[in-house]
Amino acid sequence: MQALVLEEKGVLSLREIDLPLEFGPDDVKIAIHTVGVCGSDVHYYTHGAIGPYVVREPMVLGHEAAGTVIEIGSNVGNLQVGDRVCMEPGVPDLSSRASKLGLYNVDPKVRFWATPPMHGVLTPEVVHPAAFTYRLPENVSFAEGAMVEPFAIGMQAAARARIAPGDVAAVIGCGPIGIMVALAALAGGCSRVFISDFSAEKLAIAGQYPGITPVNISQRPFGETIAAETGGWGADVVFEASGSARAFADIFDLVRPGGALVLVGLPVEAVTLDVPGAISKEVRIETVFRYANIFDRALQLIASGKVDLKPLITETFRFKDSIRAFERAAAARPSDVKLQILIGSGEE
Amino acid sequence: MQALVLEEKGVLSLREIDLPLEFGPDDVKIAIHTVGVCGSDVHYYTHGAIGPYVVREPMVLGHEAAGTVIEIGSNVGNLQVGDRVCMEPGVPDLSSRASKLGLYNVDPKVRFWATPPMHGVLTPEVVHPAAFTYRLPENVSFAEGAMVEPFAIGMQAAARARIAPGDVAAVIGCGPIGIMVALAALAGGCSRVFISDFSAEKLAIAGQYPGITPVNISQRPFGETIAAETGGWGADVVFEASGSARAFADIFDLVRPGGALVLVGLPVEAVTLDVPGAISKEVRIETVFRYANIFDRALQLIASGKVDLKPLITETFRFKDSIRAFERAAAARPSDVKLQILIGSGEE
Amino acid sequence: MQALVLEEKGVLSLREIDLPLEFGPDDVKIAIHTVGVCGSDVHYYTHGAIGPYVVREPMVLGHEAAGTVIEIGSNVGNLQVGDRVCMEPGVPDLSSRASKLGLYNVDPKVRFWATPPMHGVLTPEVVHPAAFTYRLPENVSFAEGAMVEPFAIGMQAAARARIAPGDVAAVIGCGPIGIMVALAALAGGCSRVFISDFSAEKLAIAGQYPGITPVNISQRPFGETIAAETGGWGADVVFEASGSARAFADIFDLVRPGGALVLVGLPVEAVTLDVPGAISKEVRIETVFRYANIFDRALQLIASGKVDLKPLITETFRFKDSIRAFERAAAARPSDVKLQILIGSGEE
Amino acid sequence: MQALVLEEKGVLSLREIDLPLEFGPDDVKIAIHTVGVCGSDVHYYTHGAIGPYVVREPMVLGHEAAGTVIEIGSNVGNLQVGDRVCMEPGVPDLSSRASKLGLYNVDPKVRFWATPPMHGVLTPEVVHPAAFTYRLPENVSFAEGAMVEPFAIGMQAAARARIAPGDVAAVIGCGPIGIMVALAALAGGCSRVFISDFSAEKLAIAGQYPGITPVNISQRPFGETIAAETGGWGADVVFEASGSARAFADIFDLVRPGGALVLVGLPVEAVTLDVPGAISKEVRIETVFRYANIFDRALQLIASGKVDLKPLITETFRFKDSIRAFERAAAARPSDVKLQILIGSGEE
Repeated sequence: MQALVLEEKGVLSLREIDLPLEFGPDDVKIAIHTVGVCGSDVHYYTHGAIGPYVVREPMVLGHEAAGTVIEIGSNVGNLQVGDRVCMEPGVPDLSSRASKLGLYNVDPKVRFWATPPMHGVLTPEVVHPAAFTYRLPENVSFAEGAMVEPFAIGMQAAARARIAPGDVAAVIGCGPIGIMVALAALAGGCSRVFISDFSAEKLAIAGQYPGITPVNISQRPFGETIAAETGGWGADVVFEASGSARAFADIFDLVRPGGALVLVGLPVEAVTLDVPGAISKEVRIETVFRYANIFDRALQLIASGKVDLKPLITETFRFKDSIRAFERAAAARPSDVKLQILIGSGEE
Repeated sequence: MQALVLEEKGVLSLREIDLPLEFGPDDVKIAIHTVGVCGSDVHYYTHGAIGPYVVREPMVLGHEAAGTVIEIGSNVGNLQVGDRVCMEPGVPDLSSRASKLGLYNVDPKVRFWATPPMHGVLTPEVVHPAAFTYRLPENVSFAEGAMVEPFAIGMQAAARARIAPGDVAAVIGCGPIGIMVALAALAGGCSRVFISDFSAEKLAIAGQYPGITPVNISQRPFGETIAAETGGWGADVVFEASGSARAFADIFDLVRPGGALVLVGLPVEAVTLDVPGAISKEVRIETVFRYANIFDRALQLIASGKVDLKPLITETFRFKDSIRAFERAAAARPSDVKLQILIGSGEE
Repeated sequence: MQALVLEEKGVLSLREIDLPLEFGPDDVKIAIHTVGVCGSDVHYYTHGAIGPYVVREPMVLGHEAAGTVIEIGSNVGNLQVGDRVCMEPGVPDLSSRASKLGLYNVDPKVRFWATPPMHGVLTPEVVHPAAFTYRLPENVSFAEGAMVEPFAIGMQAAARARIAPGDVAAVIGCGPIGIMVALAALAGGCSRVFISDFSAEKLAIAGQYPGITPVNISQRPFGETIAAETGGWGADVVFEASGSARAFADIFDLVRPGGALVLVGLPVEAVTLDVPGAISKEVRIETVFRYANIFDRALQLIASGKVDLKPLITETFRFKDSIRAFERAAAARPSDVKLQILIGSGEE
Repeated sequence: MQALVLEEKGVLSLREIDLPLEFGPDDVKIAIHTVGVCGSDVHYYTHGAIGPYVVREPMVLGHEAAGTVIEIGSNVGNLQVGDRVCMEPGVPDLSSRASKLGLYNVDPKVRFWATPPMHGVLTPEVVHPAAFTYRLPENVSFAEGAMVEPFAIGMQAAARARIAPGDVAAVIGCGPIGIMVALAALAGGCSRVFISDFSAEKLAIAGQYPGITPVNISQRPFGETIAAETGGWGADVVFEASGSARAFADIFDLVRPGGALVLVGLPVEAVTLDVPGAISKEVRIETVFRYANIFDRALQLIASGKVDLKPLITETFRFKDSIRAFERAAAARPSDVKLQILIGSGEE
């Protein structure tokens, strides 16, 4: 099968590759239509590894995908051939201790697309468990379906925050994940979301959404804006979505007494935590690892119109141009939020 | 001072009454601008009592109020003369066990406007603790300010529900409280809210709001609609806002396994609870008594534009016509959601 | 295989029966050692049905079991031949929506031992998924292992209650389940547990445990005792474990403002719920359906010595006397808490 | 009045001092009986400051106190002259935003005994709000009453952890606070508590309590012990009570996937947080600042016999020897857990 293969760090090929397509009774086969390019895909391309995950063999990239069911296993009851679907890229051992608790995202045995040694889905067909394949509502396009995966991270952050209706949120970092978090926090019950960045271009994209207030922190610390906007009280929930170690310096200035800090971004450098600052406000700190039990709720928010992800799809490439899509993504233009690639029937 | 006085069951006068205006260092004095007519005010008028609360002395009605601060006590730091405000009508003993826990709404010593023997605020001036007086954001009108109290009940219901982002909600009963609950649930994180009633007129009002789906149950049980819309799974949260004992008959058909039922309506008749039905789905049942720590969040949602209460203000009366306002309210037209009365400077 | 078979209502045989023993790669085979007699087993015997579950074919009884692993499937990693184990009698579809949420107990597809049409385990050998088979710590006997199932119901109740350290609990009903709930509540963080009944004999058994105060309600309403013991405040958590509809009459008198009521007992008669009573204290009502993710924690509490279930095992019968054990259980002596039956190697 | 006064860093006097004893209608006057010596008292003595709190004027020390009510204000209903009591040393502004939320411990306006510029209670008489004064149950001694304050910190940690019944806990650091945390976690629902330290003497004290397993980490990392004891899964809750920055190095090795880390200790040095380690297990991190709504529950656990603090009172001094008590405390013998001082009638 044709696939976009990361041969090794920095080397991509669009070529035939032999992919195992074991098809069990609980599985469905899907013709892939659209795949989004994620920062982690790009990072494997540019660095050859993410933390302990090192690309040692050629690996197909891509894990943000939507497509059409073309075959169903004998046990499958919730899906039919022809269903338009999106897929959760991580498949846990459902009988593990973590999975039985509902925390299948932290099951140590989870296998995740385009995370070595698992192949991704930049290829025309994949086999996937029906339990992790979700039907798209009629008014949700393939392009939106392929946005569910990154949005699910924002949703997981909003869920872990335990937002109370009307909470004020502050989001640090206006990259793709920061924007997803901001949208999920707003749809998830916040009254107002402030999002910070140094890039006016990135902030302009977030600022299109009513309810999201972009804050350029190149002039004034974020904490001063939050204090001014909340009468000195602080934000109920602060989301760290920049992955920058510097963001932690005065981070508890942003949080109200008894508020929450949610860590979404993965810092590369060592992070110094102001423990006395956290303790003196008795801040709760939550962390976010991918998502669990989120795809169906994300789809409902998109279908209901509460969340509109379409403005975040910056450009769409054909499969044959997918290497160019990755080069563009690697250039990290501030105005690019999401690049997508059309595959198979999608390409026509 | 002039006031709308309930002399006894069925007898209202707009007359001078001697109201104690003790003014302490933690209090503010407020010139009342707008007061909403609440179902409980009307019930005292038509029945002379609500449960154990019996009107034995002439009592001023009204507890949904907004106005302007005209004097502040010596300890007051958060408000100034001239501030436009709305007021939380219940004042607890802040040093009680319930209050220290943050549950001041269930403090047995709470004193609540227009609940015997406490007078209400259909009168030009009142004294109130600054701690229960909330500044209106600039873009929130007095009329909206006087809507915060009924909306706060919906907000409390949404808070008690512990909505997860993207939850599907079902609201039973499309009266004023049902609509408030639906709006709060939607703003508070739900993706979709279904609201049921027998009255097409009431449902039409709720149906104006995107995200709220009115369901007329005169033909088909609500449970069938919810099952159809959720693939047989059920709503994540069901709010009972009708106060009808009959609503409890098949109520757990509406709820998903592990979902929640939130009781807002106060049934007059005995309610039969289907305990096996609740247990077999392990449903959590929450109850709602007024509100605590809600007014500031309600105001933020109104100010941010996420919640628009203005379409619910059906008609506004002058103070001198307030008896007529009560007669109209007692007639309970299905198209009337909220009637308001202008007082003092508001009347000009 | 030999088994205790309920032929039809009121008719038990100890006889050979052909039981399917499909053995998959994720399963273990267990030689049963001890099986407890549960109220539900007895109810099938005496009534032929529990609610919608009707015995239409001969059915093996028994679901509280401990034994020894005698064979393991090819995928099984957490257990070995020779391990002493106890088993969770309900097996869900792990890929269902409820299971993925961690709520596998409310998965509509769950299959539960000795619930028609599933056979139970009063028989020498069974096959069971390894994921629902739990190794007994060294200091936990087979007899205690067979007590884990009923104790798990108490534990689920304690978990659903969300006990805060030092909470005061009131348990209505001092039958086997009431006692299990009381022990779980105490071990689970309560400072004191009051348990009520009309039977002095039953109360005497609970009263053996330090921290549990038996309250005979034949003279004085339970609410008066709780009020006296809590300075008029009420219990933080009230567990209804009697299944008596009458217990609901004044039940909210027992609960503190903002407290919780946990429904464990399954009433046969219609229950009238005092909705205004619940609302005026903003009581949270939780319900309990079997258990999920509890067996490992129950075993830890037994192994650590915090919970001693041995005094609750009233008498132990040989397998050949198992019909006699059921006749004794059906007689419902107040002094009988748990009868157990030894099978196979246990019998020697 | 006679008092133990910290004149300046390193200089204590037992001398007359003029203390304001404003007595309002909501206050009680208490004859102090017993006062515990706390690490923070000692730290003011040895360092003259704790973080931003600097001793600039002579200050009476002591905040862990029990005594007898000798006068009550006109509004006081819950206490009587002669009542034996202990006192919560921090008094918030009850009308603040934090207090209304039930989070009065993080009210920025809280005034706390022996925290500059507030005097402490190593003196024969104090005036205190009745709302923060708690009656001792009959079987709780003054010595135990004076232990409630430090135990309350452990209780707050246990409450913030949201322990589920049967959880396994790991406590880092076996100083007085670590032991309090361990006892509270055990009483608060844990099945087993492992506590680590380098000091065999300290560990021996904790090891007296059934259910607490001391772990000497001078030979083997704590994580290895926890892994071995939990089958590689990790502890459900880890409490950091050492205040050592080094403890954070491998701290997430201790926690199970989806578990919690509770920060109690206040590190002096900068702490490096392993954000990827926290995120990959989606750990929740809670922080603890003093306590709120804990004293009554702590007293119930002591009175019920579930928690025995008496073995932790190492030695009791007379008031006239209180400087010697502080010198002894400053010496920080590993075998000293709590030193107490008898005052006034206690001294006789």
